Formats: sequence, C-alpha cells, structure tokens
Amino acid sequence: MLIKRNHNWRKNMSKIIAINAGSSSLKFQLFSMPEETVIAKGLIERIGLKDSILTIKYDNGKKYEDVLDIDNHSVGVQLLLKLLLQLDIIADFNEISGVGHRVVAGGEFFKKSTLVNADTIAKIDELSELAPLHNPANLLGIQAFEEILPTATSVAVFDTAFHQTMPEESYMYSVPYEWYEKYGARRYGAHGTSVRYVVSEAEKLFDKDPKELKLITLHLGAGASITATVGGKSIDTSMGFTPLAGITMATRSGDVDVSLVAYMMRQLKITDIDEMVNILNRKSGLLGISGISPDMRDVKAQLGKNPRADLAVKIYVQNIIKYIGQYIAEMQGVDGIIFTAGLGENDRIVRRRVIEHLSYLGIGFDAENNEKMGEQVMLSTPESAVKVFAIPTDEELVIARDVQSLM
Amino acid sequence: MLIKRNHNWRKNMSKIIAINAGSSSLKFQLFSMPEETVIAKGLIERIGLKDSILTIKYDNGKKYEDVLDIDNHSVGVQLLLKLLLQLDIIADFNEISGVGHRVVAGGEFFKKSTLVNADTIAKIDELSELAPLHNPANLLGIQAFEEILPTATSVAVFDTAFHQTMPEESYMYSVPYEWYEKYGARRYGAHGTSVRYVVSEAEKLFDKDPKELKLITLHLGAGASITATVGGKSIDTSMGFTPLAGITMATRSGDVDVSLVAYMMRQLKITDIDEMVNILNRKSGLLGISGISPDMRDVKAQLGKNPRADLAVKIYVQNIIKYIGQYIAEMQGVDGIIFTAGLGENDRIVRRRVIEHLSYLGIGFDAENNEKMGEQVMLSTPESAVKVFAIPTDEELVIARDVQSLM
Repeated sequence: MLIKRNHNWRKNMSKIIAINAGSSSLKFQLFSMPEETVIAKGLIERIGLKDSILTIKYDNGKKYEDVLDIDNHSVGVQLLLKLLLQLDIIADFNEISGVGHRVVAGGEFFKKSTLVNADTIAKIDELSELAPLHNPANLLGIQAFEEILPTATSVAVFDTAFHQTMPEESYMYSVPYEWYEKYGARRYGAHGTSVRYVVSEAEKLFDKDPKELKLITLHLGAGASITATVGGKSIDTSMGFTPLAGITMATRSGDVDVSLVAYMMRQLKITDIDEMVNILNRKSGLLGISGISPDMRDVKAQLGKNPRADLAVKIYVQNIIKYIGQYIAEMQGVDGIIFTAGLGENDRIVRRRVIEHLSYLGIGFDAENNEKMGEQVMLSTPESAVKVFAIPTDEELVIARDVQSLM
Repeated sequence: MLIKRNHNWRKNMSKIIAINAGSSSLKFQLFSMPEETVIAKGLIERIGLKDSILTIKYDNGKKYEDVLDIDNHSVGVQLLLKLLLQLDIIADFNEISGVGHRVVAGGEFFKKSTLVNADTIAKIDELSELAPLHNPANLLGIQAFEEILPTATSVAVFDTAFHQTMPEESYMYSVPYEWYEKYGARRYGAHGTSVRYVVSEAEKLFDKDPKELKLITLHLGAGASITATVGGKSIDTSMGFTPLAGITMATRSGDVDVSLVAYMMRQLKITDIDEMVNILNRKSGLLGISGISPDMRDVKAQLGKNPRADLAVKIYVQNIIKYIGQYIAEMQGVDGIIFTAGLGENDRIVRRRVIEHLSYLGIGFDAENNEKMGEQVMLSTPESAVKVFAIPTDEELVIARDVQSLM
C-alpha cells in the first residue's frame, strides 16, 4: 500500500497507532484520523534475539532502518516512539491518543473491539489456550504501550470477533458436546478484521439493501479463508478452531481427514501430535504439494513444466470453488464474490480460473479488468448475474477506526 | 428388503452368494441369477467369541436361528453351507457357482471388481495398512469360502473402486507430496458399491444422455457420504482417506480441524492419537452432539424438547446442504440429487429440510411423495429444474452382478 502524504498532520492532534505484535516482532501503522491517512508504518523484527531490525517508512518515501539488540517488546516500543520524535513524525508522545492492538483469539468473550482494561487483559490471557503462539505475544504489545503511553486509549481488535455472529450449526463440530461446554471446542474463524473491512466497502458497490446482501469474501493471503456474510454478518467461514482448517494455503494443509494424521504418525513413527500439526501448518499447502515454494508466484512460474505445480494450482482453485459452492447453498444464493489480500488483489491466474469456472452462475469474466492488480476493480462483466470484485483490504485502518469510535 | 420368492430355483443352477465379512461377523445374501432374486440372507455374529449367533431368513418369511460357539470364519462358513442344504435352500454346494466378497480398501490397485487369486489376496493383505480393521476380516471371509467352495468363482468387490475415477485435484490432500508417493495418503472414499448401483438406477429416470448426467448421491446410513458423479463416474466424494471424514454421521464426526484434536488431547491428557480417532469414530456425530443416541429416529423424537436434538438435526442437514453446494460448484451444475440408504430412503424430516432449503435451485418439494418410505420415489415436483429422487440401494445385488459378469 502506498503511504498517502498528510500535508497538515502537525495541526491534527488525533493520531492513532495500529499494532500487530508477534512473539518476536511488532508491526505498526500510524494514522492521522479521521482523514485516515498513513503517517508512518514499520516493523521491529527479531525482538529478544541478537541483531534486531527496526524499519520505519514515513514522509511518503523516506525509510529509516537500524540493526541493534532489542531485548523485549517494551524496549522496542520505547525505541520506536523515540524515533517517531527524532524523525519529526510526531512532536510529542501525547499526540498519539489511541492505540489499537490486533489480538488473534477472542474466543466467545469478545464479539467486537473492546477497550483494554484489567478485565480485558485477564481474558486475553485466559484465551491463550486457544492461540498459544499469538495471544501472549499480543499481550506483550498491549503491555508495552500501556507502560509508555499510559494515557492513550487502548483497544483490542479481535480476528475472531466478526465471526461471532455465526449460527451454532456453523460453528459447532460433531464431536462430544462437552468438548464445547468445558473446553471451548468450536469454530472461531479468523481474518475477521479484513473481511469486515472488505464487506463494508463492497456494500457500496451493489444496488441492494446492504441488510439483504449475500457476499462471499475470499481472503487469499499466505493464510487464506473464505467467509459467507448475509447483511454484513458472518454466517460461516472456512477456518476452524484454528487457522489450520479450510482451504489450501501457502504452507497450511486446510481440511484433512484426522485418520490420515493418525496413519501418518504410525508411518513416520511420530508420537507427538504437535509435531504433526507443525508439519500441517508449515510444510503443507502449496509448498507441500508443489515441493517448489509456499509462494504462489514461484509455483505459477513452473506451470506447464512441473506437474506438481499444475496440481498445486488446480487444488488451490478447486478448494476455492468448493467453498464458494457450499456457501451459495448455505445462503440460498449469492449477490457478490469478493477477492482480497495478496493473491486476491493480485493473482490474475487464480482469479481467472475461479471466475471462468463460475460461468454456470451467469458470471462473465472481464479479462481486461483482471489485468489490474492491487486496486478495486470489477472482475465480472457488468451484466453478470453475480458480481465479482477485487477489493484491497486494510486491516490496520479498521483497527484505527475501531480505536477512534471507542475514544 | 423383502425376500422375493424364486419359484423355480431348483432348476436354476446359477446361484451367487454375496459376502460381507467383519472381524467377528459375516453377512450373506444368496441370489438366483440372472433373475436377481434373493433366495436367502443371513448373518453370523460373535465369531470367535462364546455364544455366536447364526441367523438365516429364507423362503419368503421363514427364519432359522441358532446360538452356538463358532470358533472362526471357516467353521462359520462350513456351518452356514450345511444349513443351506439342511433347510433345502440348495441341493448341492456346487449350485453356488460364484462368491462375491465386499472388500473395504482397494487402494489404487483395484479400480473395479476383480477375480480372487493369489495376487489379489496379496494386494488386499498389503492394503490392510489402509483399513486395519476391515481388510484382514474381508480376507478371512475370502479364505473360508476358498476352502469350502474351491471351484466357485470368487470375486472381490471394493468399496473404494468406484471412486478411482476422481481427478487428482479431488483426491490429493494439501500435505507433503511424499506422503502420497510413499504411503498412499490420499482420498479413497467409500460406499462406492452403493453409489454405483443407485447412479445406474437413476440414469433410467432422466431424459438426458447418461454420459452428460450430473448427479449428487446422498448415501445416508449410519455411515454417510455424498458423491458427485458426471456421466456415471465419481468425480468427488465426501469420505476421505478413511470413512471418518465428510458429513456428520451416527457416531462419526466427519470433518474436524486437526488442531482441535491436538488441543483436546492436551485438555483430556490423551497421548495416543488412536484414542482420539476412536472417540471421533464412536462417540461423535449425532450421538456426540445430541447426547441422546446415534440413531436419528431417537434424536428426532426429542425435537423441540431438547435443544441438543434440534442442534444435531440442524448440523446434519446443513452438512448435507454444504456438500451438495460444493459439488454443484465443482460440476458447474447438477441434474439430479438422489437420497439412498437407511435415512435417505426413510427419513422424511431430513429429506424435507434438505429439499426445502434447495428451493433456490428451482426445486419444488413433493410433500406427498415424501411420505413414502423405503421405495423409489420422486421427491421434487415434476416441473423442478433439478430432480430429486429416493432410490433404495442394494450393495449385495451389485456384488452378485459383478460376480456374474466375471464368471
């Protein structure tokens, strides 16, 4: 995404920072609100390791980079804020009036974005069982900002919240019911922040009451999920208890027969299920099938030359088509199909194959528009019975908006 | 199924027996061919245990039952054949000119029913890895009949063979490719014998070249699977590497996020994946959700009284609808939807809910015909854009036919 220049940001005192903290990383975007312009964005990598890397992009093209040891998230946040001053991006810490934190697992507690307080923190901590790699890291980010910007409004924005509208027949697994009651075993989904943004943008593109609008959103990034919404509310989504399930992804398997996992454990003499889950998360998907790369661009470069590249793309496209089909059946029809995220916004081959296959729905494919990448564009012909669009997503903007609306 | 009386069976020397052997059981049906009439059918239970039970139904309503110790399959088969003589069902062992054996896993070796010889037996044995509970039992049945009826034509009929026409994008999982190459990790499906029968019956009901016909067959028994066929060939099916995957079943979970299994192992302090697979096979599905029973009739009796019964039926119906949707998308349309097996032939509530939901496809529901149970009937109104039928299945007859055609 291009950084839009905000010509008079010095006069505007409402700045909001959107944070996405991982276990050893912290991404940020600083917005001027309500204009929704990006003032700066950047990344700290290798937190807690030697030679951490800090990058800030600002002022429409300038880039600051440094390699130094950053021991923990708190040190990283302190350094980041000092640099925002030094680089003349802000004049005073107090200009940052709000901080929004992406949190992966909100369980059933959090049905929308929520002000951070002791109770919120305790619940995010409790939910770490559901996302052991992510929630503790998200909490590190929250705590680091609370220390350094104690007066800023702090908001937690959950990946799962948007999907809390699913009916129980969509979120319940056919497993012993106590697993749900006692342990929270159910479908939570993910990418909710992205889908919420894209659906709200899509609503402007249809001549139909948004309350009636049936959409299928294909969030196709390294992680990928497909969501059905009716009237802007999620009614089903392809990711499951965790982001492992659903369609084929860069390195994740998507749906797999559990018995196959048990069988492969015997064959490979693996006794720890977590080792298998790790293979399904990191060595599977496009990478596993193709043996080439988790990156669809590398896989596509081998089309027609390597049969496993052909197979990987065929499986990927068929997975998408099958989920579109199941959600059409579930919603009893569909008004629009939206492509978003890395592949959704840019992959002309995947888009072409999916849309051409859907011709039976009365969808015409606009080959010329499909050449456009990274922008909002209609991919179906105007007379199509179901409209297809690419809409660039912007999760950080949604986070900033949520902070603003809670301030 | 009613036993049709064959009035002149004594003169007809072509009798074929269809066998379904489990680890401690053996089911049979004796046919007179080519009239396809059932002369006798029955069951031996508790083989190798104390108080084995042998039951034979014959002569249009007569029933023979005995409780005695049957040590192994060979003793069982010997006893069974002697009884067929004693009960005057056959006059001589040699009247039985063919034996057809149901075999669960045919892997990629067996794409159709196959004469049993040393090579066939070796391969079925080798494939026991894929079906450790079933293939060895099927082999016991084969060997018992080879001993006692050495001159009869012996044929293996595989549950998986019908699905060997699936394209690779339907049968490959997005897991490391070596798992397929070295260990046969792929989708095999099941219920192929049933689907093959039902599809061949359905072809007679459509005014369309069978080569063009797109059907979705819902085999809804205690085990349940959904299969898409184009031109009578399976192109995708809901069961996976094993019959655990796909839709909710009586006690089987169908599709589940593998990460949920790993999470529940931690919660329940279970370290053996096979223990989890056992729970997913035996304590899940309708039984797991409802807590009432694996039998849909018991669950339905609680509709409106027990919310978990309502939930179980809702999930079951939604699972079916979602698979129908994905196969419509995959085939780019559908001509007919066929209900078969126990629930498919008899469950008026499930049929009604599924078909009424599909009204968006231009399907009208024939409420009067839906009252008919256990018979071939059109469940959609005549003007429906997609026709829906119930067609009783008959796996044993398919087995007998395959034996005859190989004789």
